[in-house]
Amino acid sequence: MNSKNYEFSKTLHNNQNQNWVRAIDSSKIITWIDDLFRILFPEKTLESIQIELLLDQNKINFITILTEINKGKAVDKSRELADAFYEALPELYSSMQKDAQAILDTDPAADCIEEIINSYPGFFAIEVYRIANAIASRTKCLIPRILTEYAHSKTGIDIHPNATIDVPFMIDHGTGIVIGESTIIGKYVSIYQGVTLGALQVEKSMQEKKRHPTVEDHVIIYANATILGGSTIIGNHSIVGGNTFISKSVNPYSLIMQSNKNTVLNQQEIKDINFFSI
Amino acid sequence: MNSKNYEFSKTLHNNQNQNWVRAIDSSKIITWIDDLFRILFPEKTLESIQIELLLDQNKINFITILTEINKGKAVDKSRELADAFYEALPELYSSMQKDAQAILDTDPAADCIEEIINSYPGFFAIEVYRIANAIASRTKCLIPRILTEYAHSKTGIDIHPNATIDVPFMIDHGTGIVIGESTIIGKYVSIYQGVTLGALQVEKSMQEKKRHPTVEDHVIIYANATILGGSTIIGNHSIVGGNTFISKSVNPYSLIMQSNKNTVLNQQEIKDINFFSI
Amino acid sequence: MNSKNYEFSKTLHNNQNQNWVRAIDSSKIITWIDDLFRILFPEKTLESIQIELLLDQNKINFITILTEINKGKAVDKSRELADAFYEALPELYSSMQKDAQAILDTDPAADCIEEIINSYPGFFAIEVYRIANAIASRTKCLIPRILTEYAHSKTGIDIHPNATIDVPFMIDHGTGIVIGESTIIGKYVSIYQGVTLGALQVEKSMQEKKRHPTVEDHVIIYANATILGGSTIIGNHSIVGGNTFISKSVNPYSLIMQSNKNTVLNQQEIKDINFFSI
Amino acid sequence: MNSKNYEFSKTLHNNQNQNWVRAIDSSKIITWIDDLFRILFPEKTLESIQIELLLDQNKINFITILTEINKGKAVDKSRELADAFYEALPELYSSMQKDAQAILDTDPAADCIEEIINSYPGFFAIEVYRIANAIASRTKCLIPRILTEYAHSKTGIDIHPNATIDVPFMIDHGTGIVIGESTIIGKYVSIYQGVTLGALQVEKSMQEKKRHPTVEDHVIIYANATILGGSTIIGNHSIVGGNTFISKSVNPYSLIMQSNKNTVLNQQEIKDINFFSI
Amino acid sequence: MNSKNYEFSKTLHNNQNQNWVRAIDSSKIITWIDDLFRILFPEKTLESIQIELLLDQNKINFITILTEINKGKAVDKSRELADAFYEALPELYSSMQKDAQAILDTDPAADCIEEIINSYPGFFAIEVYRIANAIASRTKCLIPRILTEYAHSKTGIDIHPNATIDVPFMIDHGTGIVIGESTIIGKYVSIYQGVTLGALQVEKSMQEKKRHPTVEDHVIIYANATILGGSTIIGNHSIVGGNTFISKSVNPYSLIMQSNKNTVLNQQEIKDINFFSI
Amino acid sequence: MNSKNYEFSKTLHNNQNQNWVRAIDSSKIITWIDDLFRILFPEKTLESIQIELLLDQNKINFITILTEINKGKAVDKSRELADAFYEALPELYSSMQKDAQAILDTDPAADCIEEIINSYPGFFAIEVYRIANAIASRTKCLIPRILTEYAHSKTGIDIHPNATIDVPFMIDHGTGIVIGESTIIGKYVSIYQGVTLGALQVEKSMQEKKRHPTVEDHVIIYANATILGGSTIIGNHSIVGGNTFISKSVNPYSLIMQSNKNTVLNQQEIKDINFFSI
Repeated sequence: MNSKNYEFSKTLHNNQNQNWVRAIDSSKIITWIDDLFRILFPEKTLESIQIELLLDQNKINFITILTEINKGKAVDKSRELADAFYEALPELYSSMQKDAQAILDTDPAADCIEEIINSYPGFFAIEVYRIANAIASRTKCLIPRILTEYAHSKTGIDIHPNATIDVPFMIDHGTGIVIGESTIIGKYVSIYQGVTLGALQVEKSMQEKKRHPTVEDHVIIYANATILGGSTIIGNHSIVGGNTFISKSVNPYSLIMQSNKNTVLNQQEIKDINFFSI
Repeated sequence: MNSKNYEFSKTLHNNQNQNWVRAIDSSKIITWIDDLFRILFPEKTLESIQIELLLDQNKINFITILTEINKGKAVDKSRELADAFYEALPELYSSMQKDAQAILDTDPAADCIEEIINSYPGFFAIEVYRIANAIASRTKCLIPRILTEYAHSKTGIDIHPNATIDVPFMIDHGTGIVIGESTIIGKYVSIYQGVTLGALQVEKSMQEKKRHPTVEDHVIIYANATILGGSTIIGNHSIVGGNTFISKSVNPYSLIMQSNKNTVLNQQEIKDINFFSI
Repeated sequence: MNSKNYEFSKTLHNNQNQNWVRAIDSSKIITWIDDLFRILFPEKTLESIQIELLLDQNKINFITILTEINKGKAVDKSRELADAFYEALPELYSSMQKDAQAILDTDPAADCIEEIINSYPGFFAIEVYRIANAIASRTKCLIPRILTEYAHSKTGIDIHPNATIDVPFMIDHGTGIVIGESTIIGKYVSIYQGVTLGALQVEKSMQEKKRHPTVEDHVIIYANATILGGSTIIGNHSIVGGNTFISKSVNPYSLIMQSNKNTVLNQQEIKDINFFSI
Repeated sequence: MNSKNYEFSKTLHNNQNQNWVRAIDSSKIITWIDDLFRILFPEKTLESIQIELLLDQNKINFITILTEINKGKAVDKSRELADAFYEALPELYSSMQKDAQAILDTDPAADCIEEIINSYPGFFAIEVYRIANAIASRTKCLIPRILTEYAHSKTGIDIHPNATIDVPFMIDHGTGIVIGESTIIGKYVSIYQGVTLGALQVEKSMQEKKRHPTVEDHVIIYANATILGGSTIIGNHSIVGGNTFISKSVNPYSLIMQSNKNTVLNQQEIKDINFFSI
Repeated sequence: MNSKNYEFSKTLHNNQNQNWVRAIDSSKIITWIDDLFRILFPEKTLESIQIELLLDQNKINFITILTEINKGKAVDKSRELADAFYEALPELYSSMQKDAQAILDTDPAADCIEEIINSYPGFFAIEVYRIANAIASRTKCLIPRILTEYAHSKTGIDIHPNATIDVPFMIDHGTGIVIGESTIIGKYVSIYQGVTLGALQVEKSMQEKKRHPTVEDHVIIYANATILGGSTIIGNHSIVGGNTFISKSVNPYSLIMQSNKNTVLNQQEIKDINFFSI
Repeated sequence: MNSKNYEFSKTLHNNQNQNWVRAIDSSKIITWIDDLFRILFPEKTLESIQIELLLDQNKINFITILTEINKGKAVDKSRELADAFYEALPELYSSMQKDAQAILDTDPAADCIEEIINSYPGFFAIEVYRIANAIASRTKCLIPRILTEYAHSKTGIDIHPNATIDVPFMIDHGTGIVIGESTIIGKYVSIYQGVTLGALQVEKSMQEKKRHPTVEDHVIIYANATILGGSTIIGNHSIVGGNTFISKSVNPYSLIMQSNKNTVLNQQEIKDINFFSI
């Protein structure tokens, strides 16, 4: 390779010291959570002892990842974090069961629990969020973001690990959903594809403020609705219709619908326009 | 591991008998369909005999998956289903060819068939749907859902395996498309990213009813349009503009456009608002 | 296998000569770009000499892919193209750094460069586009499309390799974004999930024309906005609000907002409707 | 790469037409036989239907290998050969069981059948030979040699696929055993490590002749014995002692022992020699 | 598949209950010991914390293997065995270091410790034996045999896990070495390729007796020597020459040499024989 | 893990600085040579340009391995060594062809070149030696030993990389062959399984001396012959019979045979001995 490329190699080498790196191989974190899901929802019957050993192994892998991120420092803290996370796991699992049961109870297309566990992207994205959130609440590191980005990549559902989401929570289809960092969601909330729970404006100076809405218990938000703003509250038992755009609070038990403002042209009108503006 | 975790292992073990499992390793089904695509649209030249052997192998893998789902029971039925599916494969393949040709004929960005086969997510999602639908029409099991979820995960296009879609059908870009269970789509229909063909409301009691719209032949539906309701019919040769929201039937040869209701502020107005509501 | 399937095998075999093939195994191209990213943004510290060897290897893999696509012909041209691409790599890398820095400077959720490199789908999609675009500008082949489709599949962000996008460019969340072939985007532009920069209508005859909009410097486009048409120009420093639909040019420093046309029903009204039309 | 290496690439390319190739990827054949062993002696309990499907699959893989070796020709013959081989498999399996049982009955170190199946190199080498021999008796191709070389590589036991070996046959330890092409071995024969059943001299002109010995029923041949020559017959129930060298026939019920011709030097003698000739 | 094969599938299925199975997938045990070697003799620098985590992981894998062999029973015993083994590991490691150092001190071809660790089959076979022996002394199961067979397959050196071998012990080249179950070997013993320390005769009834020789401290046994019999003792500081055959005890400080009994024919004699008997 | 194990982890960590490491992952070197063989003797037809690119890639992998062994130092020397090795490759390839042709011409069991390339362990071991020797003659490092140990492990044939072996050279069966460091072998030499070309005695002080025999042109050495000593010369055109033991030079055109000293007992004698000493 010629000298120009040699210079480039040196540039890349020097940039490593200025943090132009990935810091960790995400695939290890992905393997870890895939393993964890396979323990919680196995493909075939496992004995208690097998499960226990698999959990032991999963925990060591988790500590190994934490240790690698910390470059071998803070070992005791890594062990403490792992202890806390695996102690919280039964409760997380219980939340996952409630989420799945609620989907089964409400979705007309759902036939059985296996189907939800195996093929509902919404279920997958929510449970990855619950795990990421449990970690994020205990430490500040790259892991929670990498976890939710993994779910985002697989499902198109982007839930920030710091969002606050009660149990049960239901998502159907899900592609295009964005749930921002300071969002608060109550119990028995359902949301559909393309829904954004976002910030009104995005500026670095907003970093510490509540920028995303609050959604109270028993709210349904249909496809492609957009709800923005940190002080926006969707009152309990409200129904938010598809394609609506909301930036102010609504009372409990409201029904918000898009005013249908489409224009339908007749055949003559269509012939009259040469280059139509859809 | 301490006794608390031992209790959790027992809980997980007991839950397996109450269907808190995945029932099957989805990756086997994914491998099966990836193999099938590689037979139908190979990367390099294959002799007839090689293709025949690959089809034999693919069929046995399919029977193996069916057998595993049925936990070793209903073996004869599994073989019958496989026979029926592979007998129908030439016709499915013919539909795939028509889909690809129609994309080539209409998409200004498409240069050749190879490009469509290799890099069009819409083509991939439609053909996975056609295979899933062919299976779903013959048996009730997890496979069709796992197949369409695989396509959903890769492309962001979510087509229910029970939807009824004629040939040819065209999707471009596609991310965010949702096509519900009881949707009926005619010939030469094109749809773009973010389109929802959905239910007006979602309730478990609706399970047996037609909840999703009918789209007749030669309709084009542009990006992010939302069409809802089981009795909604989009008449043939209609054009549905982007971002429209439709919950009533429209006549054939209609052009539906969003009434542009944006507000453009001038510079002075922008200065006047402190905290703008987008 | 029976004679019917034998006929089908022959059909598939014959179709290979009529281009019903994939032409290349996409996974080789995906491995190549994943390797390249791992060189540019490594997971662990690499010495200059290691980087240099990895670049050498990456280049040979690239020539191998080009050679395979060209079926062993045009070898000298493949080497020339590789030389040109790897000579341009330092500049591409510099653009990537500027993109990442701009995200860090503006996104309130971003804490450090590592986080952006490791877990921002927008960053990933933009940089894959930059690489695909650099190749597309030098040769006409399947590689650029396969690259951007790979990013599309992972992130839900669909950028055509022939689009023209200046530096820096920022995408957040990103799922559902479509940026068409003849789009032109200036410096310091930010866009959010669900934004379409598309064509007003899609017809094969439009193949050679500018069909997609121009977005000037320092524009922000919030979630789910749709901007269509080859002569549509969004003037510099404009802000395009979420869910807006634009098919005409807007002046510099404009603020475009959706007029909020939702209807909120009170409890009594909700009781009065039996089958509500959302 | 410089022009000299380019010349070398052309040389290698041209040599391919003169059979300077491997003809087939041995690893496919190795995978095939490893799979077959895993079907015959599974690691975990399999249902009948699973076994049947695995056998179907194994058979197709076998036909695929045969077809590849024949470069797509002689397809019908490949299917016939496969039919014949899998029809003979139950009998081969029965021989394998007799071999294993005989080892268990005679080896003081063997505790149970599982141990023999899982960890006896002699058992592995014999059964690979039986399979290779069954194929070799039906066709002339590379497969039998590749199979026995695979066993040779794993165990150090080199049995020619054309050797004739009755049931049961026992090998212990086995490293260094060579059993030549025209060897004939009777029932209940045991041999130990380092035994050669070879030719007296090796010349190309001997190709069609019986060059290797005959070993009759119930013979034991201890470690490192060498028995040579096509007309050499070891009569039934004979015991051939370790390190013996035999090139003439011996009667039934013979005991052949090495005359111990070692010289033991005393301490004084050892001191007297400066450079000892062992 | 026809009915005949269906019968065979049933036969195989039924035989599983009569122990015609492998009981465990050997590859798990092989992975376990390869991992353990990589921890003890790493390829790159590891931090203490990394080593500790790797040891934790290795231990869980070991318990998992034990549990699988015991079919989920005897869990506590499996944990006890693992505790005992990993407690003994530092001492085993110390023995390994002594073995390696002794090879470096005596073999003229050895340049450094890395070379011995990385490329001496004798070192590998001895240390696998030491691990297998440590397990065999604590439990009766398939693991030790599978371990030593793994070393046998890689090196051609077959050491029974129940043999008693002191520290240090040296093997060079090694192919064809067999060391039987009741062999006792002292300190500073060296042996070369093809050496058998075996039983005089092999009969099932001998199972409980000492059937293999004793080799005292500081003995050297050169290539292809055969030493047989449970009461045969090679006295300390003896040298056993190559190709010797010993079935009686020899005193300490003996030198045993093969009496050279070759016949060298001159050219005339060679011409006179038509078919020479080697 | 308890404090005792923590101590052990620290011990292992500290030992890394005292060279108790493997220094390099052997699997990289094994992959490299397997790749190289697949280039020289491909499984399917390759175009010249493909071969050239594969050679380029193989060379970079070789430089990468050298660089890793040298811990990033001596980069220029690594490139020089690689240049020299790949320049010598055509000549090495030519030697390999001559070896294969000579086996085909003399072995009655060999049917064609493909068979030799694909399934002759002797051919494999010799050619790995030729490559290892070419590297060893240019640098002093672990690579040559790891290469020949790889061949040793696969074939049971142990050739020291520093041995001097002319072209062509033939080995049949091969298990147990040892060819020592200072051995010199002429043209057209054939050797069989179990042959040792070794040192008379093994002592560290002999390190710099010629310790192994010289075998002149056209010599055949049959199975299990042992030839020892640095001053031992086997004159050209000699035939060394199986199981002979030679520690003195023999003239050209000699035939060396083992004097057959076996004792054959008749049936009566066998009955008379209770515990026979074989």
